[in-house]
Amino acid sequence: MLRTIGLITGGGDAPGLNAVIRAVVKTAVGEYGLRVVGIEDSFEGLIGEPRARPLTPADVRGLLPRGGTILGTRNRGRFVERLESGAHQPKAIYNEAVENLRRLGIDALIVLGGEGTLTTASEFDRLGIPVIGVPKTIDNDLAATEMTFGFMTALDISTEALDRLHTTAESHDRVMILEVMGRHAGWIALHSGISGGADVILIPEIPFSMRKIADKVFEREGCGSQFSIIVVAEGAKEVEGVEHYQDMGDDERAPRLGGIGQHVAQEVGRLTGKEARCVVLGHLQRGGSPNAFDRMLATNFGSAAVRAMMRGQRGVMVALHAANIRTVPLAEAIAKRKTVPADSQLIRTARDIGVSFATPDEDEYHKHETC
Amino acid sequence: MLRTIGLITGGGDAPGLNAVIRAVVKTAVGEYGLRVVGIEDSFEGLIGEPRARPLTPADVRGLLPRGGTILGTRNRGRFVERLESGAHQPKAIYNEAVENLRRLGIDALIVLGGEGTLTTASEFDRLGIPVIGVPKTIDNDLAATEMTFGFMTALDISTEALDRLHTTAESHDRVMILEVMGRHAGWIALHSGISGGADVILIPEIPFSMRKIADKVFEREGCGSQFSIIVVAEGAKEVEGVEHYQDMGDDERAPRLGGIGQHVAQEVGRLTGKEARCVVLGHLQRGGSPNAFDRMLATNFGSAAVRAMMRGQRGVMVALHAANIRTVPLAEAIAKRKTVPADSQLIRTARDIGVSFATPDEDEYHKHETC
Amino acid sequence: MLRTIGLITGGGDAPGLNAVIRAVVKTAVGEYGLRVVGIEDSFEGLIGEPRARPLTPADVRGLLPRGGTILGTRNRGRFVERLESGAHQPKAIYNEAVENLRRLGIDALIVLGGEGTLTTASEFDRLGIPVIGVPKTIDNDLAATEMTFGFMTALDISTEALDRLHTTAESHDRVMILEVMGRHAGWIALHSGISGGADVILIPEIPFSMRKIADKVFEREGCGSQFSIIVVAEGAKEVEGVEHYQDMGDDERAPRLGGIGQHVAQEVGRLTGKEARCVVLGHLQRGGSPNAFDRMLATNFGSAAVRAMMRGQRGVMVALHAANIRTVPLAEAIAKRKTVPADSQLIRTARDIGVSFATPDEDEYHKHETC
Amino acid sequence: MLRTIGLITGGGDAPGLNAVIRAVVKTAVGEYGLRVVGIEDSFEGLIGEPRARPLTPADVRGLLPRGGTILGTRNRGRFVERLESGAHQPKAIYNEAVENLRRLGIDALIVLGGEGTLTTASEFDRLGIPVIGVPKTIDNDLAATEMTFGFMTALDISTEALDRLHTTAESHDRVMILEVMGRHAGWIALHSGISGGADVILIPEIPFSMRKIADKVFEREGCGSQFSIIVVAEGAKEVEGVEHYQDMGDDERAPRLGGIGQHVAQEVGRLTGKEARCVVLGHLQRGGSPNAFDRMLATNFGSAAVRAMMRGQRGVMVALHAANIRTVPLAEAIAKRKTVPADSQLIRTARDIGVSFATPDEDEYHKHETC
Repeated sequence: MLRTIGLITGGGDAPGLNAVIRAVVKTAVGEYGLRVVGIEDSFEGLIGEPRARPLTPADVRGLLPRGGTILGTRNRGRFVERLESGAHQPKAIYNEAVENLRRLGIDALIVLGGEGTLTTASEFDRLGIPVIGVPKTIDNDLAATEMTFGFMTALDISTEALDRLHTTAESHDRVMILEVMGRHAGWIALHSGISGGADVILIPEIPFSMRKIADKVFEREGCGSQFSIIVVAEGAKEVEGVEHYQDMGDDERAPRLGGIGQHVAQEVGRLTGKEARCVVLGHLQRGGSPNAFDRMLATNFGSAAVRAMMRGQRGVMVALHAANIRTVPLAEAIAKRKTVPADSQLIRTARDIGVSFATPDEDEYHKHETC
Repeated sequence: MLRTIGLITGGGDAPGLNAVIRAVVKTAVGEYGLRVVGIEDSFEGLIGEPRARPLTPADVRGLLPRGGTILGTRNRGRFVERLESGAHQPKAIYNEAVENLRRLGIDALIVLGGEGTLTTASEFDRLGIPVIGVPKTIDNDLAATEMTFGFMTALDISTEALDRLHTTAESHDRVMILEVMGRHAGWIALHSGISGGADVILIPEIPFSMRKIADKVFEREGCGSQFSIIVVAEGAKEVEGVEHYQDMGDDERAPRLGGIGQHVAQEVGRLTGKEARCVVLGHLQRGGSPNAFDRMLATNFGSAAVRAMMRGQRGVMVALHAANIRTVPLAEAIAKRKTVPADSQLIRTARDIGVSFATPDEDEYHKHETC
Repeated sequence: MLRTIGLITGGGDAPGLNAVIRAVVKTAVGEYGLRVVGIEDSFEGLIGEPRARPLTPADVRGLLPRGGTILGTRNRGRFVERLESGAHQPKAIYNEAVENLRRLGIDALIVLGGEGTLTTASEFDRLGIPVIGVPKTIDNDLAATEMTFGFMTALDISTEALDRLHTTAESHDRVMILEVMGRHAGWIALHSGISGGADVILIPEIPFSMRKIADKVFEREGCGSQFSIIVVAEGAKEVEGVEHYQDMGDDERAPRLGGIGQHVAQEVGRLTGKEARCVVLGHLQRGGSPNAFDRMLATNFGSAAVRAMMRGQRGVMVALHAANIRTVPLAEAIAKRKTVPADSQLIRTARDIGVSFATPDEDEYHKHETC
Repeated sequence: MLRTIGLITGGGDAPGLNAVIRAVVKTAVGEYGLRVVGIEDSFEGLIGEPRARPLTPADVRGLLPRGGTILGTRNRGRFVERLESGAHQPKAIYNEAVENLRRLGIDALIVLGGEGTLTTASEFDRLGIPVIGVPKTIDNDLAATEMTFGFMTALDISTEALDRLHTTAESHDRVMILEVMGRHAGWIALHSGISGGADVILIPEIPFSMRKIADKVFEREGCGSQFSIIVVAEGAKEVEGVEHYQDMGDDERAPRLGGIGQHVAQEVGRLTGKEARCVVLGHLQRGGSPNAFDRMLATNFGSAAVRAMMRGQRGVMVALHAANIRTVPLAEAIAKRKTVPADSQLIRTARDIGVSFATPDEDEYHKHETC
């Protein structure tokens, strides 16, 4: 019988984690009379002497608007390091963790995380601890769910940054480049580029030509606009194949200095003779209070996760589809990353309103505008 | 052959109208080489001497972050008044407008509006002017689309208002009531109530008992919380049947003084002996710069509307479904209002986390929490 | 010898109270090794069985961005009611409170409040409990200090509200009225009117003529602007002497329905034939997270109050003058309210940029502009 | 006789420039019946064929909330380059500019700028063109004025960034470093460090010891706080004398990659064994819409500058002192930079609440706190 739920938050910080925690606790305790135990620092809290604490409704009071996670999180942490070090048998490591879960009286787990964290979580499910996953990826790159919490807040921040850069770009006749997150998927760059009125959007899925960026800048000058705004995802690559992203581990997203944004600034400055400046948004995209939508989605995910558990589901992840929460098998959720399809509507819309992706065939788009 | 698109914005102001205008113009002119003519003040601009002006890409520069509509709008305006006055034959009124469209060289219309505006628009379609509709309702109450632009921005504003009221409520041991929009559909109250951590949510779809609100306030006192937060949609009604909303015309949403919010404040104050205060958000919900999501959705809608027209579609409305834009027949779009279903997931989630809807059977929910 | 400081917050909520509490505790405990005891609910916590609790640095962690006061506050509360009821001798009431302070081991008081609260505080000082005051008035109407915390945040909120109303006013050709706080002093209306680009500003210090408002609306129409924005302080009065503000007790500021804003809307609508709508900001102005300046000022006030106490000062209030904190006698601080002088620079600036105060002699100002 | 005012904006972008332009135009045209001519791109618009345009009230409509300057600006630009190149006589360059002013019919200049721009401006005054200066420095480092517009907005942005970094720092047990502007003066770092709850603040005026930063991080760990927040001004220097700032020209403030922030991150990470991450705010601090205070101050400065001119003043700068605008001689305004005095109240307050400046003698401060 299900009496105690363990709660784990893993991977990078995202606005809404605390809102999920609050909803899980309120639903589990208030609606179903269960206990909730929070594990600290992702799976790391299950190594050695377990680090965990009971979570009551009083503990989650005031948590809704607060960013971050009161449980702490790790991008990889010692649990993953151990698994990968080869010094220990994976089986032994998992067994120790499962043993700790039992010591804590935990009957089932709700795990908040992205691809990496949920992969680990599904292992626990396989080992007999029922798991319900809650998707967490600021990049919104999980195929199994339309949307993840935190993404909208990240868009608000990136869009506001673009608004700010606009005035400086225009006042100084500059090219301003904003580097945003997105190593493999360009959703943040694409969405905020559209919302922030960018002239050029560079994403990992569409290799770009530096020359075509310069062409766009010149085209705008021809129309009397002496400035241009470029959004570049950290994982964007030039057509020629030079990759400016150095891999930093599976879930790590430091604000990389000397990354693609700065490279674009230098090259575009050189090619156009204009002042070009780069700002790297970095961690500003993933911290802080979630916006209204993210609080709602996080709450809905958290509450739905408990309900799924009470219905006897396991090895599934809650997901958003057509404005409803449903569940999908964890295995499926992990298997497929959602990248921006070349033929997506948003790409089409962006091109139609004159945004350039700086592809070699860029001239074929939006050609009627005569300023 | 399609050469000139007429553009009309009708109904109440909503954040994102200008972003749609911008996307229509950029797409129509830049991608397809069309002309765009903006009609002023909704259909009113088609009465008598037409009021309209060409819209070029230069005219829509800088429009993305700006709230409102540069074309002006009317809630009902003289066009509808004429139709309803009975002094003129409807047919004559429409013929005059169609004649004006022809004088302006307009081959087809893109019309932004809610149920009322789109009903008028579909009449033009019937009269031979191809029409593509773009849904606009701050209440998000059109069944044919998952989401309309402006709604998310309204949620941000309501949620921020709730955050602000929280601190005052808590510091003064008060009951604070926020009255938000929603005459027939409680989406704004429901969503922002969840996002803003309300204790009680009152919506038109679920008649409430004043006594049950007081019970919730007392329950919270029993748990040591001397304050409570209530969100009430302007169209919420008591179970007993007393309706505090006086109808003010089809699309009008003045911040009603002496409305339901103030009534709740008075009665709850009386029943609980606590200080109770009401704030009516009113027009603050519908003006101002759209947030990132609304800018993106508005842009996508505007651009997709032009593409639909170029594909030869007519008598349809662009709509969001499962993260994609599709088209639905205008007739269908108008026919069905989207209200909050009693068995919706969000209602369930709200109850599960302890939110009260103050229904007579309220005691049956969330009963395990012991503070 | 000073060992324990009592801390009291009184009067209406204002953004920054918690920031002051945090600074007092951190400075007193960390820098001077003192104890701090927080009294609950203003002076009410000193009636009967005292309600108070020690405050340590751990207790004030995370408090800086949080609005409100963790100590609770009262506008008047039972302490003042008792004093005014006449049922008890004031002396007896104060003696009971002083006795409670001694029982709590409190050697001196830091009191945060406005005119009313500080008047009570100075009585304690007279009775032998050294008091340092910290000014708190969202209206910024204390003559002894250039600025109080909370005021800037209120301006941000009012200004953002005006930005939002602008787009709706412009799209609908309306007159939009925003009613803000300010019963006796029009600082919020004046400042936010200038910051929000209002066309007409109505403040208690300058009686207005309804007819002159209408003239301004017509003047704007003559220049092609079909909309106007009006900011009105709740205490504004017509020249003719009709006062629309009903007094609600000394420190109470409920968002009054049926107040001056609505009256202006009705009359201006009637006089101009235009749609006129009113929004009453009410409590939204005083809750929520303080902005950067208010956090800084609150922190500086709190810390300076402790330092003043350690220097042996008493019966004084910390105050801002020329970018520095200094102290002024409490008696002086209470004695004089700061209203907007008719010849103030801001009034002059407002008139010079074309803002109307709707005075009978309004035509004499800003007369060269020909649109 | 004064009939036409020339208007120039120079130096880096700052929120509020457009608000000053609007106030100057509205006051000069509307109140005094003057003409205003805007010179483009700072003094560059006076080289060769002058680039300038008349500014009417219609031209400045809607400008109040917009960041940047519609006149364009230059940090140094071709005017300064020419002066410094030595290829031309300074006298010849100025004469050409003065000649251009005469051709444009300009009788006097209002110049918005910082030290550099105002130095150039005072030269024009010496050459017989009456000049009124308006101070503009995002760093707030002009001694002659208490405050400059743009500074408060920059503080809001930095403080919000710190709020966001807090949640990530806490969730990941990290040291987060925010690098803000301030090459010679640490006002932004000091103010926003206090407002954003930083643990360590590093400013140019107070050389720091890397070791002492690490000590603070350890001290916090000892109290159970596994994270720390550091704000560093771009011009901060280590005690040992290693300067990480490479001069980039007089008024240039690119978001420097590989600057002091990253250096601190690396070293503190190394010394403490903790994850340390740096975000460089860069241009985000100086673009975008001004906050309420900055709009008010900018409007007041602009309007007061015209009034000063009408009073016959020249060679002066408007300045804020004790909540009033006054004028100071340009020579005096340029002569003295306002840096943070070691004995300033804010430094004292910061230390008193436990902020470390990482000086070698740091242990002497705030020593009583025992967590």
